[in-house]
Amino acid sequence: MRILISNDDGIYAPGVRALAEALSDTEHKITVVCPDRERSATGHALTLQEPLRVDQISGIYPSNIEAWACSGTPSDTVKLALDALLSDRPDLVLSGINRGANLGTDVLYSGTVSAAMEGVLEGVPSIAFSLASFAHLDFSAAANFAKKMVKAIAERPLKETILLNVNIPAIAEEDICGAVVTRLGIRRYRDQFEKRVDPRGKTYYWLSGVIIEEEADADTDIQAIRDNYVAITPLKYDLTYATAMSSLQSWTEKL
Amino acid sequence: MRILISNDDGIYAPGVRALAEALSDTEHKITVVCPDRERSATGHALTLQEPLRVDQISGIYPSNIEAWACSGTPSDTVKLALDALLSDRPDLVLSGINRGANLGTDVLYSGTVSAAMEGVLEGVPSIAFSLASFAHLDFSAAANFAKKMVKAIAERPLKETILLNVNIPAIAEEDICGAVVTRLGIRRYRDQFEKRVDPRGKTYYWLSGVIIEEEADADTDIQAIRDNYVAITPLKYDLTYATAMSSLQSWTEKL
Repeated sequence: MRILISNDDGIYAPGVRALAEALSDTEHKITVVCPDRERSATGHALTLQEPLRVDQISGIYPSNIEAWACSGTPSDTVKLALDALLSDRPDLVLSGINRGANLGTDVLYSGTVSAAMEGVLEGVPSIAFSLASFAHLDFSAAANFAKKMVKAIAERPLKETILLNVNIPAIAEEDICGAVVTRLGIRRYRDQFEKRVDPRGKTYYWLSGVIIEEEADADTDIQAIRDNYVAITPLKYDLTYATAMSSLQSWTEKL
Repeated sequence: MRILISNDDGIYAPGVRALAEALSDTEHKITVVCPDRERSATGHALTLQEPLRVDQISGIYPSNIEAWACSGTPSDTVKLALDALLSDRPDLVLSGINRGANLGTDVLYSGTVSAAMEGVLEGVPSIAFSLASFAHLDFSAAANFAKKMVKAIAERPLKETILLNVNIPAIAEEDICGAVVTRLGIRRYRDQFEKRVDPRGKTYYWLSGVIIEEEADADTDIQAIRDNYVAITPLKYDLTYATAMSSLQSWTEKL
């Protein structure tokens, strides 16, 4: 397979390097195209006001992997790779391995998931990988799991062009209990802003936030990670809330 | 009702001013909190690397409307308004009126829709309004329609906390055929990047793109706008592709 790898932590991040290295001894042709710096929490942002630049990177990836840094967001980067940079369309887009979980409603803000979504929007099956910890920086178990998934896709292609959001618990490989298919839970935050005063007496705010409440039923990604399972959540790009359409229709008729 | 108005075109944009002015003679208490400049296509991007500033704006909105400009993205702006700036929780969040349509898969990139999504994520019913043209800059028909929807919500509250994505055709008010409930269509682009060479001989790329193909079945927002109807699409924030879960489960078991 031809595989495009991207991320939102930037081309030099250890997570994407671990992923690329794990796949470098396979028969797949790997190309890495990542933002040139960290672009976390940029969601699906696109760069419209300035042009994009790309530079080939050498010396940090295995020699059989072509690597490019792009000045844009994760969405820009994957779009540019698919539409302008790669001579052949990839068979698979991988994003990550992200430093930190992308669980529940937080996927809306995730550059990692948005990068993978660009692949699916252009008809390429895509997987977003995230290591569910900011502290634990050993990506080897997650990279091995990613490699296993890529092998499985090569042998047993998925039935449709789908986006899989994969979160891997940040524990030793032998302690991972397995992989389960999940749905997104809900994460809520409190104290989202910290108010401060600058040396000139002007107020400013830092976005912060503490997780208070999570919908974590047994079948959610949040609960799977708590139980030391890899959580695999299929995502789609159609945000239509179909079940609300009929009651809304009668409401709209009276407008 | 207490109503929060935001947008992604910035506090000085004519669309948000038309919306606020149309609602200024109602009994509702209106607060406008918008990005301080245009922040289109920023999706759900959040500002984590720098703090946010807000400034009260006077002289451009009716005197009974409090208006604030925020240095962040649309998502930052609504979060900050709800969590730090407003003393009372609003009953409704409105976003727009955007200059240009937000139809189909393009809603993923839309700052207008993301601003409204922040409202729903915090439990407040929200509506995103977009005028389906970049050329036609008369927001009066769209503002009148928005006013009618707000009146309907005050009289007949919606059954659940929902996000409505409303696109209004850019035609004379008397030519609008009515309002219909729709689902999101699909928009695709070709020639997404224009490659140029700078005066120093270096390549750069502009994201551009021409719409080539739209899934525009009769019940889509894209088709409704073509037929001169207002398109009202209910959206949700849960991206789980539930129908793929069972087939994926059997695939995952063999991992």
